[in-house]
Amino acid sequence: MSDSRPRVAVTVGDPAGIGPEILLKALARPEIQEFCVPVVFGNARVLEEAMPVTGLSPDIRPIRDVGQAEGKPESVDLVDLGDLPEGSYSKGHSSAETGNFTGRCLETAIGLAKSGEVDSVIMGPTCKKAMNAGGYRFAGFRESVNHMAGEENTILITLGRVYNLARVTTHVPLRKVPELCNRANVLHCIRLLHQGFRNLGYETPRIGVSGLNPHAGEEGLLGSEEIEEIIPAMEEARAEGIDARGPYPGDTIFFKMRDGEVDVILSMFHDHGNACIKLVEFGTLVNYLAGLPIRVFTVMHGTAFDIAGTGKADATNLEYALYQAAGRRHP
Amino acid sequence: MSDSRPRVAVTVGDPAGIGPEILLKALARPEIQEFCVPVVFGNARVLEEAMPVTGLSPDIRPIRDVGQAEGKPESVDLVDLGDLPEGSYSKGHSSAETGNFTGRCLETAIGLAKSGEVDSVIMGPTCKKAMNAGGYRFAGFRESVNHMAGEENTILITLGRVYNLARVTTHVPLRKVPELCNRANVLHCIRLLHQGFRNLGYETPRIGVSGLNPHAGEEGLLGSEEIEEIIPAMEEARAEGIDARGPYPGDTIFFKMRDGEVDVILSMFHDHGNACIKLVEFGTLVNYLAGLPIRVFTVMHGTAFDIAGTGKADATNLEYALYQAAGRRHP
Repeated sequence: MSDSRPRVAVTVGDPAGIGPEILLKALARPEIQEFCVPVVFGNARVLEEAMPVTGLSPDIRPIRDVGQAEGKPESVDLVDLGDLPEGSYSKGHSSAETGNFTGRCLETAIGLAKSGEVDSVIMGPTCKKAMNAGGYRFAGFRESVNHMAGEENTILITLGRVYNLARVTTHVPLRKVPELCNRANVLHCIRLLHQGFRNLGYETPRIGVSGLNPHAGEEGLLGSEEIEEIIPAMEEARAEGIDARGPYPGDTIFFKMRDGEVDVILSMFHDHGNACIKLVEFGTLVNYLAGLPIRVFTVMHGTAFDIAGTGKADATNLEYALYQAAGRRHP
Repeated sequence: MSDSRPRVAVTVGDPAGIGPEILLKALARPEIQEFCVPVVFGNARVLEEAMPVTGLSPDIRPIRDVGQAEGKPESVDLVDLGDLPEGSYSKGHSSAETGNFTGRCLETAIGLAKSGEVDSVIMGPTCKKAMNAGGYRFAGFRESVNHMAGEENTILITLGRVYNLARVTTHVPLRKVPELCNRANVLHCIRLLHQGFRNLGYETPRIGVSGLNPHAGEEGLLGSEEIEEIIPAMEEARAEGIDARGPYPGDTIFFKMRDGEVDVILSMFHDHGNACIKLVEFGTLVNYLAGLPIRVFTVMHGTAFDIAGTGKADATNLEYALYQAAGRRHP
């Protein structure tokens, strides 16, 4: 019997964090398995640890081949990466061992995505410090996945219920933003967004490009970067068949997204778009890495070590990630 | 019998626009007169013109002295600035005459605010081009009111239901923003916000200052302006007894306002704060000019000449202005 549901690999993240708890909670919701087959990458012990505090006790089904996954709410299909040494962690306290385990789960899932055995990967909440101690020496999600997937040119896209956002610049002083929003960088980002949304199933993604200056420069009166850099980049992208729209004024571009006129917004810098989407979509945002041949997502929150092991952790963000990874809109 | 309700002067704005229609609509709502005595500055003819299309027919009560205003929903207390010459305008088409009339209404209302006869002034929707043609040669609301009130140092504050916002820089290229967010300018803005909110009745306004750089500079890693300019300005303000808080990261500062921890946000530049408040408060925003001894507000929309005279215009924004001008929170 063939199963048309996409297979979504989900890693437990750091075993010392809330990852195992939110996984049990999210996978217990029957609507999730209606549209996807989640395949958990972790081990049996960390899932069993999370059962008493969450009040959930699904059957753990270890599988050797992801093709064996059944995707039923009463059980968890598990690719078991092996147990951690006794005493290598306690809840709320990560270690080199948990970091290494976190990295191996992700690496294995990405390998199976590259070979086409899973359709998408979701990275659970990780501890960057532990991953680095455990041998995965990367600055963050993007850098880790780039390395594992063998790609360098990627861009993070934040996907929400309504608003999708990427940025030309991120963690740089505002003073450096104008020179970085040059034609080459803007074009590069537009191309990556196009590829990334094509990879999500959009035939011709509509990319809404923000201006850099107030009123998108107001025809040069309030800044020249739109005329000299951004518009030429957009014209080059259009010549390649990319649907780049704008540049729209930064203070109203979000209406284009709200009204369904574009599929994603390309903001020029950190505090512009981030302030907006955090305000209207807090908890519903998921990161997606564009520029890869595979689809990799991550939850937007950390390991929450302070509440790990208490059963209090909220699984909503992981649920959003599952919907996004399966190409669905959260209800 | 004394009347504790504040007197709010409201100008009709440009007679060729939607001002007269939204005035009739807003003043017909009985809750408005429960908390204020609106005094209209305009003339009888423009109000009468708006009656058939709005389906409203309050009594027009011309008054010589604003002390005669009664503030009843079934009548409009009018300070009549005299009729316009026959043929000087038609609905949807302003002229030098309507612009001059617009300016005279505002000037008269501001004069009465200066002498304490009205508590606040709301400027109705105006046509800048017509005002300039009519002899009021100013770049906009702020410049017009500055001139009429005899002040130069003012700052526009946008007041919403939940979010209040001012900016250190507005219509300048982003490239120039860092140098303009210097100690002197930031301090100047903080002082004006303090004065402006004191004038609205806040004893010690809590001013939330945004960073300029991502993560408010992250202790200098992502930009130095916070350390070199913004924080010293805030310290100087605090030494004067001003409650300046932050600098907060630009992408999360709006939570401080949502959660009631600050009374106003001082953003460093146009597209940061404006994008957020437009997204969450469209239609509910009103501009207030701080730095004056009087309280002057304006609606956020224009004359909407395309629908003027049809009765379609929405009075919601003027209602918000009436609540703000009376120191009330819109329900």
